[in-house]
Amino acid sequence: MIILGLDPGTTRVGYGLVETNRKKLVLIECGLIGARSADPAERLKTIKTELVKIVKTHKPALIGIEKVYFSKNRKTAMAVAEARGVMILVAADHGIPVLEFGPSEVKRVVAGDGGATKEMVGQVVALTLNLKSPPRPDDVSDALALAIRASFEKPTNPK
Amino acid sequence: MIILGLDPGTTRVGYGLVETNRKKLVLIECGLIGARSADPAERLKTIKTELVKIVKTHKPALIGIEKVYFSKNRKTAMAVAEARGVMILVAADHGIPVLEFGPSEVKRVVAGDGGATKEMVGQVVALTLNLKSPPRPDDVSDALALAIRASFEKPTNPK
Repeated sequence: MIILGLDPGTTRVGYGLVETNRKKLVLIECGLIGARSADPAERLKTIKTELVKIVKTHKPALIGIEKVYFSKNRKTAMAVAEARGVMILVAADHGIPVLEFGPSEVKRVVAGDGGATKEMVGQVVALTLNLKSPPRPDDVSDALALAIRASFEKPTNPK
Repeated sequence: MIILGLDPGTTRVGYGLVETNRKKLVLIECGLIGARSADPAERLKTIKTELVKIVKTHKPALIGIEKVYFSKNRKTAMAVAEARGVMILVAADHGIPVLEFGPSEVKRVVAGDGGATKEMVGQVVALTLNLKSPPRPDDVSDALALAIRASFEKPTNPK
């Protein structure tokens, strides 16, 4: 079963694909979707187009996506939520169940500590997936952590 | 030129279509998109599907959509932003420019008072579109006010 983790952002989205192989997790692919246009509509379109490509290529059975909380920068939080809406829509369009996790929950389950640093998360991701070094940048590492976190759950409503 | 106004919500979206006819504005259609599923992904999918139908049927040249501000209920604000993301994406997918307006700006320009009540907005919408009574519910009236507000602008970057 292939699981896709998504770390939503306004100008880029980290993604990570892992495969659950009985007892172990294997890295399939990871990277960034860049959406740097000044036009919000163009950014959302880029995110959709690239995400659809990833979904069609790898056919994930489950998507884990980070929840957005209100940050100091409200405008950023709203823009990230808009991007999240597009990602959840792409999942629904392809019949893929979505699980949502808050940052501290991912850290707690994946790294054993809800207050783990980005570095710690990266190291646990590398260990879990048998990588020589933590994936970079942090968005990619976080996306893989989300995929790993999602791999521990069975979707309640598979479609 | 047909202009679509959208009042985004979590479980329903008000929409209103007006046509600019040289000197006057004419009501084409208005209503609500209901998206009451308990599953956020299903709600976003319904909003997309119904909005695509509206866009394909009426081919609006411009879309006016309400900006979301942080409300007391943060969770609601984030869900509305996710719905907005889907609506902006549908616009981009169909090459329709989007203008965004805050609630007080719409009221100020349409009703002459940024602090106008929902009733006042409804009455001005009815007067502007030559309707016997204000459209109901408020979401529909607000969507038409957004379309009227958008009709006063020329998109800066028509596609």
